[in-house]
Amino acid sequence: MRLTRRYHFAASHRLASPALSAEENRRLYGKCNYPHGHGHDYTVEISVEGPAGEDGQVVNRGMLDRWVEERVLRTLDHRNLNLDVPEFANTVPTTEHLASFIVNRLNQGWTLKPRLAGVRIVETARNTFELEVGG
Amino acid sequence: MRLTRRYHFAASHRLASPALSAEENRRLYGKCNYPHGHGHDYTVEISVEGPAGEDGQVVNRGMLDRWVEERVLRTLDHRNLNLDVPEFANTVPTTEHLASFIVNRLNQGWTLKPRLAGVRIVETARNTFELEVGG
Amino acid sequence: MRLTRRYHFAASHRLASPALSAEENRRLYGKCNYPHGHGHDYTVEISVEGPAGEDGQVVNRGMLDRWVEERVLRTLDHRNLNLDVPEFANTVPTTEHLASFIVNRLNQGWTLKPRLAGVRIVETARNTFELEVGG
Amino acid sequence: MRLTRRYHFAASHRLASPALSAEENRRLYGKCNYPHGHGHDYTVEISVEGPAGEDGQVVNRGMLDRWVEERVLRTLDHRNLNLDVPEFANTVPTTEHLASFIVNRLNQGWTLKPRLAGVRIVETARNTFELEVGG
Amino acid sequence: MRLTRRYHFAASHRLASPALSAEENRRLYGKCNYPHGHGHDYTVEISVEGPAGEDGQVVNRGMLDRWVEERVLRTLDHRNLNLDVPEFANTVPTTEHLASFIVNRLNQGWTLKPRLAGVRIVETARNTFELEVGG
Amino acid sequence: MRLTRRYHFAASHRLASPALSAEENRRLYGKCNYPHGHGHDYTVEISVEGPAGEDGQVVNRGMLDRWVEERVLRTLDHRNLNLDVPEFANTVPTTEHLASFIVNRLNQGWTLKPRLAGVRIVETARNTFELEVGG
Repeated sequence: MRLTRRYHFAASHRLASPALSAEENRRLYGKCNYPHGHGHDYTVEISVEGPAGEDGQVVNRGMLDRWVEERVLRTLDHRNLNLDVPEFANTVPTTEHLASFIVNRLNQGWTLKPRLAGVRIVETARNTFELEVGG
Repeated sequence: MRLTRRYHFAASHRLASPALSAEENRRLYGKCNYPHGHGHDYTVEISVEGPAGEDGQVVNRGMLDRWVEERVLRTLDHRNLNLDVPEFANTVPTTEHLASFIVNRLNQGWTLKPRLAGVRIVETARNTFELEVGG
Repeated sequence: MRLTRRYHFAASHRLASPALSAEENRRLYGKCNYPHGHGHDYTVEISVEGPAGEDGQVVNRGMLDRWVEERVLRTLDHRNLNLDVPEFANTVPTTEHLASFIVNRLNQGWTLKPRLAGVRIVETARNTFELEVGG
Repeated sequence: MRLTRRYHFAASHRLASPALSAEENRRLYGKCNYPHGHGHDYTVEISVEGPAGEDGQVVNRGMLDRWVEERVLRTLDHRNLNLDVPEFANTVPTTEHLASFIVNRLNQGWTLKPRLAGVRIVETARNTFELEVGG
Repeated sequence: MRLTRRYHFAASHRLASPALSAEENRRLYGKCNYPHGHGHDYTVEISVEGPAGEDGQVVNRGMLDRWVEERVLRTLDHRNLNLDVPEFANTVPTTEHLASFIVNRLNQGWTLKPRLAGVRIVETARNTFELEVGG
Repeated sequence: MRLTRRYHFAASHRLASPALSAEENRRLYGKCNYPHGHGHDYTVEISVEGPAGEDGQVVNRGMLDRWVEERVLRTLDHRNLNLDVPEFANTVPTTEHLASFIVNRLNQGWTLKPRLAGVRIVETARNTFELEVGG
């Protein structure tokens, strides 16, 4: 049984690679490279897999929520990804990198009964990014 | 080719495990344990897999609809899960158990050409539950 | 400036008029008259109108949330409308009556700066009910 | 006939009133006052009113799009509202103020045949802000 | 009390004004003027206004559905607007004209208790068209 | 990492199999067999899989967009599938066949870095069709 639970956070960021010139960054990232940054409302879907327990649930919703809040939302919500999150000081905060970051943060110290099965970020109505986590 | 078709039903339920005390049920299920029950609008997505037939379709929509109506919707729609559905007389009607119930009901006597591939319940905007059915 | 803020609650109910016979209730309300009731996820949109204050906001979100929580959600969320809400002991809990109930509950003792301008219930993807509140 | 057309932009901002102390700003705006700002995906709905013309349309879609692009989106999309938009240098960029800003920008020099009838910002799934423009 | 109920239909059409040359039609309507037409899934929202009756409802849902089915959906659903609907034989089937057509069709012979208050067509995720009907 | 990007097109079609009699086509396809055709707004979701590159992206969005535009949208958008697309001259344009068509068109000459992983068509709010593309 796979349970997917949806979370939201708002953040700002600016796409710019330290390895590239200002001119190359502009060409590569376009509007996402504007100097003062911009922002998005991100939706994150966390999937866990396992059998239903004695209480008829794959996972206790409150315990999952606390883990996601503590490991992910507290760090990202209403933050500037480039300036507030050390991992993005020298790494471009594309949504691809953001998805990998979230998987790593959730996996470190994971003690919930079902396994972490996947993370999906719905960036905008046009783009989603998914990482399956090996079973 | 995988075709997913979406159905809706409204039902009421109350979460309470017969194996637990009133106090434990309250702590475990919170508002979902309120004595007179509450309700939801459930969305169920039924997925079938197979090649397109001579009519260019994986499955005849009307035949699939009739099967889902007869096996699932007639039993659940506008019902009280605890009181109207015998399977939930002694089983907590969590959405996890509801998903298993739907898979079992659909599979018993399945005669449609494509195989039943999966069932997903969109419980609310926050939670979805998926069961893949082995190929 | 009109600000509309969206809230959610889940409830169960059964449509049956005490003035009608069992047979007439069945004919009039159909599946909504099934004896053990059923349920829905309701969305309620509360609109207030007024100028932006010194803080640049029409209303403090937290203050509005507390009023809606205290006056409406605490009474309706995860409840059985017929059995848990005295106003529906002898009044059919149609969504029309529910909308009037919510307007009355919000208006009694309203002290927020902007005026209450309207209430809309999104019952399902098919039906919405709106009450404008005179200015 | 009222035609409403929907546009999108992403921006970052920080809520902080120059008239208040750091402590008061934190209490008033909470997470929205975090020092490095955050961001949102905004949806803007522009409504115009008038009869259908000879071409059967209230307004030429391309002409409306160009006006909204030139007057609003070019200024706000992928921008930092506090740093990139002079009007918000000393005005808190709440969505209320953003709505007024958009109405003013659209109205200055409006030459389209139908009149500008309203502006609505869908800030998040929870909040919308509407300004009707006098007929 | 205003009740809005949502209906759907799919249709094809081609935008071309008989008063214009082929060249002018191409310039004015762009892709919508391609010779063999194209199609859309239209959502129509019908609003009625009145007090709740003895059954607690503004209107009997079944009676409203039958009127909309008979007067509007049967004529438009899965049809080619230009070829199947006489009113569009010489009138460009823009969504503006479609909205006026629907209001006229519903109003002729209207006998339901609440008054017809408005019609809104959600053409695509980008455009909606509204006609308020005088009280 | 799997990136899914969403595209839209509007088209008209008529379901009718050249191998069947008029009577059989009517019975099999119902309203979809009406003589002058009808139309839909289709959403197509294209999934690609691969690691994030030096720019932090699985694929350059502009390059993917150009490929989808050139290979799929230009051929289908605002077209009549039966009359404008040679592949459907003798093949019923069901959404199943449309999905296979899109996979074939995208795969021929694919030179983007990540592999094409899947195509999904959201036909209406009720039906979706998915083709996974072998890894």
